[in-house]
Amino acid sequence: SSPQAAPEAPGVAVPTGCAAGRAPSPRDDIRDCSAPHPVPGTAVVTQDKAALWTDSRYWTQAERELDCNWELQRTTSIESIGMWILEAVPAGGNVTVDPFLFSIDTWNSYSRALHGSGRTLLPLETNLVDQAWGAQRPPPSSSEIYSLPAEFTGSRWQEKVAGIRQQMEQHSRRPTAVLLSGLEETAWLFNLRGDDIPYNPVFYSYTLLTNTTISLFLDEPRLSAAARRSLLSGCPGPLCVELQPYGQVSAHLRRYAQDNVTVWLGTEYTTYGLYSIIPQEKLLEENYSPVMTAKAVKNSPEQEMLRAAHVRDAVAIIQYLLWLEKTVPQGQVDEFSGAQHIDTLRWAQEHSHGPSFQSISASGLNAALAHYSPSNGSSRTLSVGEMYLFDTGGQYLDGTTDITRTVHWSEPTPLQKEAYTRVLMGNIDLSRLVFPSHTAGKTVESFARRALWDVGLNYGHGTGHGIGNFLSVHEWPVGFQSNNVPLEAGMFTSIEPGYYRDGEFGIRIEDVALVVEAQTKSEETFLTFEVVSLVPYDRKLIDLSLLSPEQIRYLNSYYERIRELVGPELRRQRLEEEYAWLQASTEPFPLGSARTLAPGALALAPLLSVLLSGLGA
Amino acid sequence: SSPQAAPEAPGVAVPTGCAAGRAPSPRDDIRDCSAPHPVPGTAVVTQDKAALWTDSRYWTQAERELDCNWELQRTTSIESIGMWILEAVPAGGNVTVDPFLFSIDTWNSYSRALHGSGRTLLPLETNLVDQAWGAQRPPPSSSEIYSLPAEFTGSRWQEKVAGIRQQMEQHSRRPTAVLLSGLEETAWLFNLRGDDIPYNPVFYSYTLLTNTTISLFLDEPRLSAAARRSLLSGCPGPLCVELQPYGQVSAHLRRYAQDNVTVWLGTEYTTYGLYSIIPQEKLLEENYSPVMTAKAVKNSPEQEMLRAAHVRDAVAIIQYLLWLEKTVPQGQVDEFSGAQHIDTLRWAQEHSHGPSFQSISASGLNAALAHYSPSNGSSRTLSVGEMYLFDTGGQYLDGTTDITRTVHWSEPTPLQKEAYTRVLMGNIDLSRLVFPSHTAGKTVESFARRALWDVGLNYGHGTGHGIGNFLSVHEWPVGFQSNNVPLEAGMFTSIEPGYYRDGEFGIRIEDVALVVEAQTKSEETFLTFEVVSLVPYDRKLIDLSLLSPEQIRYLNSYYERIRELVGPELRRQRLEEEYAWLQASTEPFPLGSARTLAPGALALAPLLSVLLSGLGA
Repeated sequence: SSPQAAPEAPGVAVPTGCAAGRAPSPRDDIRDCSAPHPVPGTAVVTQDKAALWTDSRYWTQAERELDCNWELQRTTSIESIGMWILEAVPAGGNVTVDPFLFSIDTWNSYSRALHGSGRTLLPLETNLVDQAWGAQRPPPSSSEIYSLPAEFTGSRWQEKVAGIRQQMEQHSRRPTAVLLSGLEETAWLFNLRGDDIPYNPVFYSYTLLTNTTISLFLDEPRLSAAARRSLLSGCPGPLCVELQPYGQVSAHLRRYAQDNVTVWLGTEYTTYGLYSIIPQEKLLEENYSPVMTAKAVKNSPEQEMLRAAHVRDAVAIIQYLLWLEKTVPQGQVDEFSGAQHIDTLRWAQEHSHGPSFQSISASGLNAALAHYSPSNGSSRTLSVGEMYLFDTGGQYLDGTTDITRTVHWSEPTPLQKEAYTRVLMGNIDLSRLVFPSHTAGKTVESFARRALWDVGLNYGHGTGHGIGNFLSVHEWPVGFQSNNVPLEAGMFTSIEPGYYRDGEFGIRIEDVALVVEAQTKSEETFLTFEVVSLVPYDRKLIDLSLLSPEQIRYLNSYYERIRELVGPELRRQRLEEEYAWLQASTEPFPLGSARTLAPGALALAPLLSVLLSGLGA
Repeated sequence: SSPQAAPEAPGVAVPTGCAAGRAPSPRDDIRDCSAPHPVPGTAVVTQDKAALWTDSRYWTQAERELDCNWELQRTTSIESIGMWILEAVPAGGNVTVDPFLFSIDTWNSYSRALHGSGRTLLPLETNLVDQAWGAQRPPPSSSEIYSLPAEFTGSRWQEKVAGIRQQMEQHSRRPTAVLLSGLEETAWLFNLRGDDIPYNPVFYSYTLLTNTTISLFLDEPRLSAAARRSLLSGCPGPLCVELQPYGQVSAHLRRYAQDNVTVWLGTEYTTYGLYSIIPQEKLLEENYSPVMTAKAVKNSPEQEMLRAAHVRDAVAIIQYLLWLEKTVPQGQVDEFSGAQHIDTLRWAQEHSHGPSFQSISASGLNAALAHYSPSNGSSRTLSVGEMYLFDTGGQYLDGTTDITRTVHWSEPTPLQKEAYTRVLMGNIDLSRLVFPSHTAGKTVESFARRALWDVGLNYGHGTGHGIGNFLSVHEWPVGFQSNNVPLEAGMFTSIEPGYYRDGEFGIRIEDVALVVEAQTKSEETFLTFEVVSLVPYDRKLIDLSLLSPEQIRYLNSYYERIRELVGPELRRQRLEEEYAWLQASTEPFPLGSARTLAPGALALAPLLSVLLSGLGA
């Protein structure tokens, strides 16, 4: 999927705080900003000025849609917004935000930006954008909220609740409740899904899980009969889910917080509006709730499901690659129709629920824009003379996928080949790394960059992100950013180095990998990655002489695994041509081509063969 | 030098907050805790309990010296101290600390640890330990504070002051003053040195540098005549240094803070006592002052001086290594006498001012203790049957050095050899890394660990630290910890991976390296390291077959540089035997021995030689 913007860009990578006017708001009294999307934008309106901050994905659209009352700011940094406010708002002025559109951490960042400046940040629960919007505002979603069939869940929701309650008991602060504000948290905990957010099978909801009760706040009539039965199966009792209207969460929380309680919540994504209801001394603040961190470590059934989804997803990608080889030379495919075709191929796979994000399908210079997505009107034709990058993913009942391949159908330039090879070397070096348990992703992500750094190249986005089980394609808090949690066995993350050359081309190679225990002689736990994306790389773009023997060996064993896992599935689906394509594309690479010898000794292998032939061998 | 404890251990790595009763206190009214040492320990005393927290360097001594009124806590984490306090101090109780012994950040950490618990952290300027100490307390230092000769300074102090004032003008908050609380800050700014802290040529002082005045707080009679002349040479005027009694800093700062001012300071090391004098809205808080960050980037003369000091330091180490080879087999050297001998050799070098820290000289199992230093009474005899690790450094007028070598005088075990080789591979991999300017050390330090990780090994300390120009051997804020500043050209840092096997042996290979621009084709700035420590590694301990050709090539070019730079100096000092030793010890390694080929192809090189001989070649 579209990689996370610049590493550490404040406010971009955190999947919370949403822009005024952009967040879907199912009820008038409460809005939710915990949708699992990067912030698309932030708007600030004063009496005489208005400005929109957004990232490069939206610049063109913003220029088209903003009239001359608006200025477009081509960044999303809170620091930049703060500085703009300091100029636009006189000292003594108040700056109001809708507290249900900002997470605690985002609120605090704004608060720090204005600190000591004489401007005050204030919550304003009446959303002025909604008032201006009035009747034109789209109605809230009314589609069904359903239970996942048992075969697609890692454990029963009652077991998950018991596990979280156990964590509450074992915590030194003895919290009496966990407040779930992230949509994925509630969806995961109860094995429920919906479709309120494009590409993400979640629904608007809050949960207050106490040591004796469970309150689920949602639009109750939308629950399927099976979902309702499942939730009420433990009633009355501590495993009975009390269904409450979505809009009641604030009032309920206010009542609950009057007692002698301690509420555990994650400050990275809980709305400031809910947070400010709870007295400071009754809060247990951590970056992530125990539900968020439990969800991040997949159990065996969840791992098996994600693996299985990736096998079928590889079938769709392999079909697409073969189709491109045949149709691109005829000049009939453009970026948009290509993206449509891959969607069609994925829909044909078992358990498909469509794409997991808007496809990136970018030819030539368009691929240099990390967030480019084609539209029907303006779409570049794919051609054998250009590189093509596609970054797409699927939602399946058993898992979420995300993969990027970059291909060329004729002769890449030497620079393209070297850059592609170095991006691949980075992908390999991180994928085969052995590292101690609980290592922070940030401290190892440079292994994905080193082959590029060696020749003065780099990429300006993050190296990877967690991924859900039929949930978000960017699933926090796993990944390689500095605010991600340490890596543990059972976590899934993408690994996606790239290289982009403005106005010329773009390269990204993205796989999803499972964190697994490494085999060492140590008594300590060491980890490594098992790549679960199973699609070969473009051989034409690989300069074997840059690779070390270890890298080639790794590549060959990865290809062997692709053959083992995807080959039988292709045959099962009677895709014989694709099967033949896969065999040809996963031929082992000769080790003798590797960067093995010192410059002075480079002629050793050819020399040997000359000698051997001279000896009649 | 003794490597920083576990990476990220709170309170250990920060060279500030000092232990009650341990910090030297030159005056009764003001104490200073900004000495450039890791925290040696923290003591907490309640009405009925007393405990000391300290790291492994001091456990033996603490057990010997503490009576049964004290409990020894074998950690230095503020979290652990906080939890002890929560048990020992009833809710509603006050916890007092001497605010001049705790940095702002350390104060805040304790404050957070007690937050919401009903215990209150309070400053208490009457130090109760000092009261109990009474007349037995050692008198403050009275030795001379002197100017560095011009040939040993990177620039005149007036230029440094001008540079800092320029940074003040360019800062968006327009600070009117910089408060210097770190002893190294004042020493560096005015090109002054003293000897108030063992091994560190600094003196007790504070500086308040405003846009129009300079106030230097110290024990004025201790200034040498030349130093006084230099400081007063610009009087009257903005480059006149007003000399004020050390004890007046609080009163002076209080008066200054009454005006319309903004005071810039570094929260990592400024005492909470001074900080709390300044009203919140008049503070510009950053982790480090502009003096601290300016000092971290060495200019050309400073770089040249550090290089030159390392050449002479290498001579002393090479003399020591040769002397060990000759005397250890006779069983006459122990850890303590060895450490004494290296001190003697360093003192004989030009511009020497003694060791830069207490030598670590550890044989056999003692080397597994990362902080071990021998004492006269209990010192292990060096023997050809054991590995020996020595981590030592020198102070020279032109620079500070710090180097660790591990050696063996007969047959190392296969595990020792493999572990040594992998530590060396880590040292090489980080030293030869090419990386973008402003990369955080924390994101690249894993390159020093990967060769160990590959086989399930690791080390439990940091990978390196900044170093001063005739200043502290651990100079913040440069290094590879997460609270270090990003790497820039002109910074010096140690690179010191290791491996320790409890009860058996310890390995560390430490060099000091300069951050320099790398040669790439990129228009962006890329950096790499130039190793300035110039002593070869023990060939007996290197398993060449584990090294890649790139690593061997790197090693050979490093050895070539050692020959070029140290060889002539050895000859100048008429050390012919040492010269011969150096030549033998820096023979190029054969590239053909490297880990170059795939297992199946490993026999290629020998096969070739057989074929060549068969052909009569």
